[in-house]
Amino acid sequence: MSVDPVDLTARLVRCRSVTPAEGGALALLEELLSEHGFACTRVDRNGTPNLFARWGDKGARTFGFNGHTDVVPVGDRDAWTHDPFGAVIEEGWLYGRGATDMKSGVAAFAAAACDVVADRPDGAIVLAITGDEEGDATDGTVALLDWMEEQGERMDVCLVGEPTCPDEMGDMMKIGRRGSLTAFFAFHGVQGHSAYPHRANNPVHACATLMDRLAGHRLDEGTEHFDPSTVQVVTIDTGNAATNVIPAACHATVNVRFNDAHDSGTILDWMRMEADRVADETGIRVEIVSKVSGESFLTPPGPLSDLVGAAVAAETNRVPDLSTSGGTSDARFVKDHCPVVEFGLVGHRMHAVDERVRVEQIEALKRIYARILRDWFD
Amino acid sequence: MSVDPVDLTARLVRCRSVTPAEGGALALLEELLSEHGFACTRVDRNGTPNLFARWGDKGARTFGFNGHTDVVPVGDRDAWTHDPFGAVIEEGWLYGRGATDMKSGVAAFAAAACDVVADRPDGAIVLAITGDEEGDATDGTVALLDWMEEQGERMDVCLVGEPTCPDEMGDMMKIGRRGSLTAFFAFHGVQGHSAYPHRANNPVHACATLMDRLAGHRLDEGTEHFDPSTVQVVTIDTGNAATNVIPAACHATVNVRFNDAHDSGTILDWMRMEADRVADETGIRVEIVSKVSGESFLTPPGPLSDLVGAAVAAETNRVPDLSTSGGTSDARFVKDHCPVVEFGLVGHRMHAVDERVRVEQIEALKRIYARILRDWFD
Repeated sequence: MSVDPVDLTARLVRCRSVTPAEGGALALLEELLSEHGFACTRVDRNGTPNLFARWGDKGARTFGFNGHTDVVPVGDRDAWTHDPFGAVIEEGWLYGRGATDMKSGVAAFAAAACDVVADRPDGAIVLAITGDEEGDATDGTVALLDWMEEQGERMDVCLVGEPTCPDEMGDMMKIGRRGSLTAFFAFHGVQGHSAYPHRANNPVHACATLMDRLAGHRLDEGTEHFDPSTVQVVTIDTGNAATNVIPAACHATVNVRFNDAHDSGTILDWMRMEADRVADETGIRVEIVSKVSGESFLTPPGPLSDLVGAAVAAETNRVPDLSTSGGTSDARFVKDHCPVVEFGLVGHRMHAVDERVRVEQIEALKRIYARILRDWFD
Repeated sequence: MSVDPVDLTARLVRCRSVTPAEGGALALLEELLSEHGFACTRVDRNGTPNLFARWGDKGARTFGFNGHTDVVPVGDRDAWTHDPFGAVIEEGWLYGRGATDMKSGVAAFAAAACDVVADRPDGAIVLAITGDEEGDATDGTVALLDWMEEQGERMDVCLVGEPTCPDEMGDMMKIGRRGSLTAFFAFHGVQGHSAYPHRANNPVHACATLMDRLAGHRLDEGTEHFDPSTVQVVTIDTGNAATNVIPAACHATVNVRFNDAHDSGTILDWMRMEADRVADETGIRVEIVSKVSGESFLTPPGPLSDLVGAAVAAETNRVPDLSTSGGTSDARFVKDHCPVVEFGLVGHRMHAVDERVRVEQIEALKRIYARILRDWFD
């Protein structure tokens, strides 16, 4: 019996799986997939719930899907038109937290996989579903991949079902992502009276100079498959309420999204060099602590993107752009395991109030995923 | 009977006259001065206590003193070696809040005036003492001067008894002050995701650019009697904890100390011009709210500074530098009434814990003030 992906999306939206809560979402999927012949294993780590499901033999030629059932918080509940966990359908829209990011994607690939395995294809399908993509993601997809490595489980290729289409169903897939690095700067000067600046050393001036230089620098002009790298100073903070006092310290945070012309090491080297230059010029001590969310990666256009692109085109009459734009996703972990691309629906109001999805897009997405699987097994 | 300025300082320190509290300080002075023949009037305005005292005839040739009895808060009481209101004397130091800023100055000129009027000089002495110099100063010396104007009271010259000596007793007097203007900047951009900066407009970048330009600009090279004007960015604040979010707004505060090559209007024009340039370049809206603490002013070297300088040299064997350095003082109000200079002792730990004064400096300061008065009446 064919699985209805809209009904499954609605049932998943009703699970209150705000990171790190499981909320019944993985249990629901485990029950459904087990009924359809999948071998399911909960791969929880450090309190993070994850679900591994395989149909077919371990070691067979395997198509993998990756996704997550956790969602970001509701935010301002009163601003929502409908209950964020109600899965209300109105005028063709299904409303709810996770409606697009990405319970509909998980529902679509689970429903497609259940349908396809009914035909007993020659090979295996793996679904690697995590309950921690929106959080620190340290015990989510990473934990699933670690466990698969230990168990000898593998995927030959993987499709991440995150929303990828900016405007119309089928207009974009992702074949890589830029890297993301955040640097936390601390500037240490000498406190003093505003009227006697020669007796002080103002860290805010050094901060403004360095941030202006970093924000004004063009790291590159883009590469074959990537947009230009970008630098954003997301905050500068001092907390000095006294207008006649030069403060002792000041802080700034910079987020860099970098393409394959760089890696986190070269980005950090560049920031350290600029910081050292400002420190030399001003005598202000500049400390940097950095956090790398992910390196840039690319699955070059080839068999996997051809397979996905052809299925999308067949179902939507659109040839999807091969993009590497946007933020990070768990594809940054999967790429170390096997070739990975991302394709999903249009992400209306992801993380915002009134997050919602077109019902017909969920159905189309299931058809696309099912076509990808059938083409892969053929 | 000669008034002991050290004892009077100690009695004033014991009054808890943290702005705006009177704390008994003005009452104590009113009693003392009345005993010595001064006509005293409390000139309170909007809850701020002030004391006007005159010896001699209204309309006679008049020497004025200006000072304040209010003090800044104690701060960390536990960090003090002695009770901040105890006036403990140890190893030649008198400890307490206001010991240098400026109960010792008030005690010295009150004691000197009491001694000098005993000789019945030909002229008048006015003491204009406020209880609000450390606060907003809107109803302090300004209220006294307004009241004097109404009453036909005047001073021919005025000496403000604030601490003026950086290192040694007698090494500096002030013949003017730079102006002070504070500008509060708000930068309004477009919020967005760090990974999609083309859909946002980052106000922090515009802020860093403008602050770097303002801080890096040299307004002048100093003038005949003034140090160069200075620009200090005292704080930049955003309050954005999310590293993947470009914030909607950002704030900065700039304090400018400007000499007689400028006034607050030309300084503000310059900042507005630079802000407009950044707004044009970035599309970020920049708002400026400004507050002028005082315009720059100068009492050019002449009879008053000669009189004070000669008395200082006679008592200390030091010829005081004629300076316009430092912050603001109530001299900025007095200068509209009559020629004004400032001379006082060394300001050890003003506004800090363990504020203290050398006992012999209080005595020397009284001798200097008394010599100034006698030379003036001669």
